[in-house]
Amino acid sequence: MENQKLNQLLEDCLQLADENDKKIIESILTGVKEKLESENGTYIGHILQMKQNHEVDTFELTLQLSSLVNNNLDILHGGITATILDTAMGTMVNRVLPEGQTAVTNQLNIHYLAPGIGSQIACKAKIVHQGSKTMVMEAEVQRDDGKKIAHATGTFFIIKK
Amino acid sequence: MENQKLNQLLEDCLQLADENDKKIIESILTGVKEKLESENGTYIGHILQMKQNHEVDTFELTLQLSSLVNNNLDILHGGITATILDTAMGTMVNRVLPEGQTAVTNQLNIHYLAPGIGSQIACKAKIVHQGSKTMVMEAEVQRDDGKKIAHATGTFFIIKK
Amino acid sequence: MENQKLNQLLEDCLQLADENDKKIIESILTGVKEKLESENGTYIGHILQMKQNHEVDTFELTLQLSSLVNNNLDILHGGITATILDTAMGTMVNRVLPEGQTAVTNQLNIHYLAPGIGSQIACKAKIVHQGSKTMVMEAEVQRDDGKKIAHATGTFFIIKK
Amino acid sequence: MENQKLNQLLEDCLQLADENDKKIIESILTGVKEKLESENGTYIGHILQMKQNHEVDTFELTLQLSSLVNNNLDILHGGITATILDTAMGTMVNRVLPEGQTAVTNQLNIHYLAPGIGSQIACKAKIVHQGSKTMVMEAEVQRDDGKKIAHATGTFFIIKK
Repeated sequence: MENQKLNQLLEDCLQLADENDKKIIESILTGVKEKLESENGTYIGHILQMKQNHEVDTFELTLQLSSLVNNNLDILHGGITATILDTAMGTMVNRVLPEGQTAVTNQLNIHYLAPGIGSQIACKAKIVHQGSKTMVMEAEVQRDDGKKIAHATGTFFIIKK
Repeated sequence: MENQKLNQLLEDCLQLADENDKKIIESILTGVKEKLESENGTYIGHILQMKQNHEVDTFELTLQLSSLVNNNLDILHGGITATILDTAMGTMVNRVLPEGQTAVTNQLNIHYLAPGIGSQIACKAKIVHQGSKTMVMEAEVQRDDGKKIAHATGTFFIIKK
Repeated sequence: MENQKLNQLLEDCLQLADENDKKIIESILTGVKEKLESENGTYIGHILQMKQNHEVDTFELTLQLSSLVNNNLDILHGGITATILDTAMGTMVNRVLPEGQTAVTNQLNIHYLAPGIGSQIACKAKIVHQGSKTMVMEAEVQRDDGKKIAHATGTFFIIKK
Repeated sequence: MENQKLNQLLEDCLQLADENDKKIIESILTGVKEKLESENGTYIGHILQMKQNHEVDTFELTLQLSSLVNNNLDILHGGITATILDTAMGTMVNRVLPEGQTAVTNQLNIHYLAPGIGSQIACKAKIVHQGSKTMVMEAEVQRDDGKKIAHATGTFFIIKK
């Protein structure tokens, strides 16, 4: 692909973009750049700018809120809430599994409690049950004003890498 | 924000990108452009290039697969599967509600059945129960080889717009 | 244990019982008798008088309603609804598994849609996904006036007998 | 109904019953007697001999294990586990609601973690979220050897009494 085509696409976007849209484009391109510079992580994780904080018994992810992650009602999209919950629980699972094992999501159950608004959300995951074939996890998401917006449980299947 | 800053960010990305990464950047920028040209839809919907197909009793969304939507195991991220499920069920709810009403996701339950691979997935939603305060929906996601990869149910709260 | 003790207990009950209570005692003792006469089935199944009807693609259970299965609000107890759902899905799983295999419930998700009232409910189960390690099932419960009162999905782990 | 009919039914049962069956019949009739002597509680609660223990932040129910509550594999029936979970969460909800309000189960999600065996199980419920229209609860069930056998969350709709 010729770079010229991508430069033109960005040019087209900038002609239509207001100041808020430009911030979102900056955020997306910064995420893409970080993904390309990094050897770890996924496009989704970098574009959503999910940051990790691992403690002894829990694992925390944070995510910046903006129109990029909102739904038609201009509040956080339920699918993005699901994404941070699944990522936090799955990452915590991988932290405790021995070398050579990883896990895939088998079942996810989410209770949505309040609208996702404000500047940032944080998701904390912890272990409910660690078996030989599955792990059951629990996670919740809080806004920066401390309001809990979602509570989830998930079952993860342990597989060989 | 000066456009020059965004042009430079894209330039940095292109220096690190291989051909596959460039296709993903093209797909993202095309989604952003379509969002800015359109009066409807969200950034997420346009970037994920979700396309709609509404029939009498069901509602279908499709989504193109690529590294953009994959997890660390290079299969479809469970959070993106949740996003298309939530979007399909929520859009179907809005199609049947009368003027002046909309709905928010209250509870989402997802069974993951098989890995999301291939070029495209399709998600079909249908109504399980239409009450006066809530609607309960069902949806499933199929790969282009016909394999079912996820089955979900969700409760939606009906609210005034 | 001496039979006299049990005869006395029944005597105590009958002194306190009105006509409706006597019908419930009759129903319980009939269930116990059928369980003891039968080589199959559980105390719960017989006491709740769950009757089976197996068709090609679905499996149906029926259950008589009375104060025996009601909660404090005098409508069907959510736990009994869960019992018929779990039993119908689990029995259907066992019908399709080969000799030497059985299954245990791993996850159960129930949406309650309307109050359980009337004289009888019927629960139909069907297969959503049949894998090598798990089966995912779907079931719904209807009242005798045709109203759907619950919709459930469940994951069952396949194990050796 | 003539008492003679019920006495005959019990007689029929006792002719077929071994010592273990007699203990179950004793347990059932004791539950029925307690239900008839009491002004509170349900048949199910008394027959299953669920006992309550209310603390400040949690609510606990215990249940005796026996063949009465077992499934075909002779371990605790998943529906009975669901019954104690639903009862514990629902009772806790009613303890915190103001006069004139009660609640009905809207959604129940259960992860089964280990087989229910031993002599007794205990179920603890606590509040995840208290809203104006719904409450979201969490509960878990432990065996008397301390092993966790189930973890659940539930949504309860608040209604007027």
